[in-house]
Amino acid sequence: MRTQVGIIGAGPAGLLLSHLLHLRGISSVVLEKRSRDYVERRVRAGVLEQGTVDTLVEAGVGERMRREGLPHHGIELRYGGAGHRIPFEKLVPGRSITVYGQQEVVKDLIAARLAAGGDVRFEVEDVAVHGLESGLESGPYLTFGGERLDCDVIAGCDGFHGVSRPSIPEGVLSVFEREYPFAWLGILAKVAPSSEELIYTRTERGFALHSMRSPTVSRFYLQVPADARVEEWPDERIWAELKARLESVPGFTLATGEIIEKGVTPMRAFVAEPMQYGRLYLAGDAAHIVPPTGAKGLNLAVADVRVLTEALAAFFERGSTELLEGYSEACLKRVWRAQHFSWWMTTLLHTFEDDDPYARRLQLSYLDYVTSSEAAATTLAENYVGLP
Amino acid sequence: MRTQVGIIGAGPAGLLLSHLLHLRGISSVVLEKRSRDYVERRVRAGVLEQGTVDTLVEAGVGERMRREGLPHHGIELRYGGAGHRIPFEKLVPGRSITVYGQQEVVKDLIAARLAAGGDVRFEVEDVAVHGLESGLESGPYLTFGGERLDCDVIAGCDGFHGVSRPSIPEGVLSVFEREYPFAWLGILAKVAPSSEELIYTRTERGFALHSMRSPTVSRFYLQVPADARVEEWPDERIWAELKARLESVPGFTLATGEIIEKGVTPMRAFVAEPMQYGRLYLAGDAAHIVPPTGAKGLNLAVADVRVLTEALAAFFERGSTELLEGYSEACLKRVWRAQHFSWWMTTLLHTFEDDDPYARRLQLSYLDYVTSSEAAATTLAENYVGLP
Repeated sequence: MRTQVGIIGAGPAGLLLSHLLHLRGISSVVLEKRSRDYVERRVRAGVLEQGTVDTLVEAGVGERMRREGLPHHGIELRYGGAGHRIPFEKLVPGRSITVYGQQEVVKDLIAARLAAGGDVRFEVEDVAVHGLESGLESGPYLTFGGERLDCDVIAGCDGFHGVSRPSIPEGVLSVFEREYPFAWLGILAKVAPSSEELIYTRTERGFALHSMRSPTVSRFYLQVPADARVEEWPDERIWAELKARLESVPGFTLATGEIIEKGVTPMRAFVAEPMQYGRLYLAGDAAHIVPPTGAKGLNLAVADVRVLTEALAAFFERGSTELLEGYSEACLKRVWRAQHFSWWMTTLLHTFEDDDPYARRLQLSYLDYVTSSEAAATTLAENYVGLP
Repeated sequence: MRTQVGIIGAGPAGLLLSHLLHLRGISSVVLEKRSRDYVERRVRAGVLEQGTVDTLVEAGVGERMRREGLPHHGIELRYGGAGHRIPFEKLVPGRSITVYGQQEVVKDLIAARLAAGGDVRFEVEDVAVHGLESGLESGPYLTFGGERLDCDVIAGCDGFHGVSRPSIPEGVLSVFEREYPFAWLGILAKVAPSSEELIYTRTERGFALHSMRSPTVSRFYLQVPADARVEEWPDERIWAELKARLESVPGFTLATGEIIEKGVTPMRAFVAEPMQYGRLYLAGDAAHIVPPTGAKGLNLAVADVRVLTEALAAFFERGSTELLEGYSEACLKRVWRAQHFSWWMTTLLHTFEDDDPYARRLQLSYLDYVTSSEAAATTLAENYVGLP
């Protein structure tokens, strides 16, 4: 079996790449070890940057997102007993975010690929990468469930725990990482959001985020200890803690409802450089992880795929390898900007047990500044909606 | 002996307070343990915010500063082999900084006080604060060299190591502090500056700052270990290290000359709250210290004195204690903003031995952002020239 681009992983990165390549007349096969049902239900990110929205719309897979997604023109920072809105419409005119679940993007992309006769294989076993070092003469290939897929190029879109990155020989990649001393407890609840916009809350009890997935489904996050387990968080405790943190301003009442999903997400940062080896190109979480505070993970994956699509088009249409060779460098500038922004949002809003009283005052002073200086608020806004 | 305001310390804070009170018809006596010659030669800060310049001009002590001071409309951030200018004229139109040595401000203020018949006493011994708890009935008083000075109010302007703050009973003040794991070696040299504007340089060897005091005198700072001693830094080593750090961009050559002063400044932050106790009011370094990176120490002292002057005028002119009671709170908002900005500039530009590779990349990404985003550059500029 042969294809031009073998894609490992049917998450947003792999599916979007396959779709964008198809639009350029380039063939691909997507290999995914999970079931279609699993990837279409997997709750992950839900905040799309302007650039991500534009990419999906231009690629013809934005119709439902435009209909069902919730455009947001600001977020609230809540601390010290008051809420402060960061108004995107004033600070970054014409740019906004769209709240639309990652699993909805995945559904739309799978539907588009299948409608176009695309080759997306679910529940494939034992995917392995081969022939990376042989270069263009023999070409790389993938094996899975006893089959062999010869490719001109392999795209590793299989996330942080996937097989792509570990198939690069030791010593090739430089790794940069950071573990945060806390985690996020993510909660999905059948209840109308208590706020029209996202609320990022800093309290002495820890950080909380009030988000949403639809007009009837709310999404919450609680800062919890790094070793927290879901069993320690029965529903009553979750609601009590969410109320204790989010009802920290007068007049705000948190509506409660049935909790339909909860899980603990570690807070960590990771970058592997370069994002390529031989004819293997890593995109999205396979190459880099950010803590979720800045809502950048999915958006970075889409940005990687945009760059990779152009590079692959130049390669297949004109035989030019220049963009492919520059792929990693082109992506990493945005990756590090997002790493920094995610660190910035995380340290601005979480409580750190090691922080001494001086550090806590600095944090509050910084929040006062971000919510009172137009320039400082703009730095938050322009990163949040996504830099060009 | 009796006066309305007993002022401890003839640094910029104490002298300016005495001068401003004089303009409002309020009497004061300034007590300074050092000699006039010493305080007039003590090399300290040299970057005056717009608000500081305005205060000195409005108070009639800005004539020589306007003539000899060097107005600057930008600074350079140098890192990664390139220089990046932060253009104040574009980012914060109409606001700038003035390079004019603190000792020149002190000279101008002493001259003004003496010309007006002001009572400034140098080389006074054993200054002590008394009667703070007795309130308005008996009033506080100072003793020094066998004399007693009765006052309505005492102003503690005697710096971080002065007697004012320790005369407040234990348990009254909350203290916030931070020690940085490095110091600054400050160098004064008889050589024309090699750049028209200040250069803040981040290199793998550490931070360096190229500043100036006049068209013929340059001021330099080198990040050195916290326990560095001046004896370890002979002139040749200083010039070699300054060149290694500052000549990190093509085409820049550092002019050298006679080194006329050098000294090690610890890098630390400190805030005592509240800045008042009974009828004692602390101003400037007596209440708070910032690392020098943001050039905020002297400017904060002047801001404190502006607030204190208004409060004392309301007290003596109308018997109103409202502003005096709010003095600490009014000052501390600016103090914490400056604490945060100074921390921000310090962490942005210094090398920290404990930083792992991830932290170093974050720092470089932040520098790239500050030098490429107008909003981020404006946050630097507006803090540097001084927030209103």
